[in-house]
Amino acid sequence: MIVDTLAVVGAGLIGGSFSLALKQAGAVRQVLGVGRDPVRLTVARELGLIDRAVDWAQAGQADCVLLALPVGETGTILRQLAPHLKAGTIVTDTGSTKANVVTAARAALGARFADFVPGHPIAGSERSGPGAARADLFQGRRVVLTPEPDTRADAVVTVRALWEAAGAQVETLGAAQHDRIFAAVSHLPHLAAFALVDDLAGRADREEFFRFAASGFRDFTRIAGSSPEMWRDIALANREALLAELDAYLAALRSLREAVDARDAEALLTIFARARAARENWTMDS
Amino acid sequence: MIVDTLAVVGAGLIGGSFSLALKQAGAVRQVLGVGRDPVRLTVARELGLIDRAVDWAQAGQADCVLLALPVGETGTILRQLAPHLKAGTIVTDTGSTKANVVTAARAALGARFADFVPGHPIAGSERSGPGAARADLFQGRRVVLTPEPDTRADAVVTVRALWEAAGAQVETLGAAQHDRIFAAVSHLPHLAAFALVDDLAGRADREEFFRFAASGFRDFTRIAGSSPEMWRDIALANREALLAELDAYLAALRSLREAVDARDAEALLTIFARARAARENWTMDS
Repeated sequence: MIVDTLAVVGAGLIGGSFSLALKQAGAVRQVLGVGRDPVRLTVARELGLIDRAVDWAQAGQADCVLLALPVGETGTILRQLAPHLKAGTIVTDTGSTKANVVTAARAALGARFADFVPGHPIAGSERSGPGAARADLFQGRRVVLTPEPDTRADAVVTVRALWEAAGAQVETLGAAQHDRIFAAVSHLPHLAAFALVDDLAGRADREEFFRFAASGFRDFTRIAGSSPEMWRDIALANREALLAELDAYLAALRSLREAVDARDAEALLTIFARARAARENWTMDS
Repeated sequence: MIVDTLAVVGAGLIGGSFSLALKQAGAVRQVLGVGRDPVRLTVARELGLIDRAVDWAQAGQADCVLLALPVGETGTILRQLAPHLKAGTIVTDTGSTKANVVTAARAALGARFADFVPGHPIAGSERSGPGAARADLFQGRRVVLTPEPDTRADAVVTVRALWEAAGAQVETLGAAQHDRIFAAVSHLPHLAAFALVDDLAGRADREEFFRFAASGFRDFTRIAGSSPEMWRDIALANREALLAELDAYLAALRSLREAVDARDAEALLTIFARARAARENWTMDS
């Protein structure tokens, strides 16, 4: 056993899967659920994601508290939890952006910030909610922790051990570096897919278009099926890095447009071939 | 049997799969292969995609000639074939763009243009070449035919019957309408994926980025693994429609960028929710 009691704030896809995986691995004795939505907590208990629903005071007595919420709610929730935290309780999160979470946690937790381990599991699904949770969601997936210089080293060790027990491979990055990387490989692609589908969806003759869309379109736009609320929060939380990526992408698309406009076959072939080579190398690595 | 002898120019993924499907369905007696690459023809024969390799003069004696080539080569190949065409031989193609194919065919075939049925099977794969061919590639997929007012009606009937024998569902569209639709649902997504991967691949610290890319990135960029030569040809062949789609997409991305920059949570949520709803409706339909 790694910790006796885990409290999960937001027992949905991520929080519920973390709980199931740790229970299955024997890494926790009991899991408490806490949150503002009693119906969701009841469902989570019925599905065995949590052992019981508790209030903030009881959640603060757990050995480890996991936040699995839209990143925009981190500050509010931590302020609610902070007065109840027993000495030594570790708090960790699963947000897709990290610099803003660190800022919010520092403000909300004050002296207890040293017990906060910022984390981001690179796993997900277009499905969400307690019903989507599964014990193997993190199996073989990467989890990035972004501890700050003043984060307690042994808290990082514990959180790492929990994720490893859930089957994940843990890496550490600086929060800013994390946000820059994920703006490029995750946040920008999501916005690009949303923009593409929305552009088509807004047309009077959209039925004609969607009718002939095939597998390339399906895969390219799969992520446009993701939670609008979650992605609104991420876009705002990682605003600076995302703006830089949007600008780089707009520039790349404008270059392509210029090559098409100028009928520059050579330039198009160079760009497409470079992209294919990179894409194929990437596929082989992972 | 629908036709006695089929000749395939370019027995790769598309031409080879068409041949396999028709043989399996008993829709043709024999399939001839023709092309400029003798090694490829030998491989196609060894794989059973064609019965034998022939020259242009013999190919012209077939009842139906299928072109399965990069769209940019249509004119050259039809000029080579035209002098050898026996009376009544139907010619059809599989190119991803249609207005430029119609123009090239009209110029190359002259009075015989009436025997040309422009076609586009909505099926493919990042894999290509004879080794990728399979009898079920078109099973349940759409094929779009774009006959012109002067196309022979019975030639359209025969080509439709062949595709239906291969398992496909056949629809007809005008060539310009076809090109406008596919610029939006296929050509633009391919360019957008190429641009995204190339933008990352050109960075000094690209390894860091690719290392953390996950399933969203994988799906979004899968089509960036497609043939650079094929997509160069398509981008140039469908230049006008593609430029219009690139401009619409650049405008959609700039709107998103403005909303992120202005921290406009409401606008982001509206765009993301509209896109998700459209994407989910589409998934249900197909």
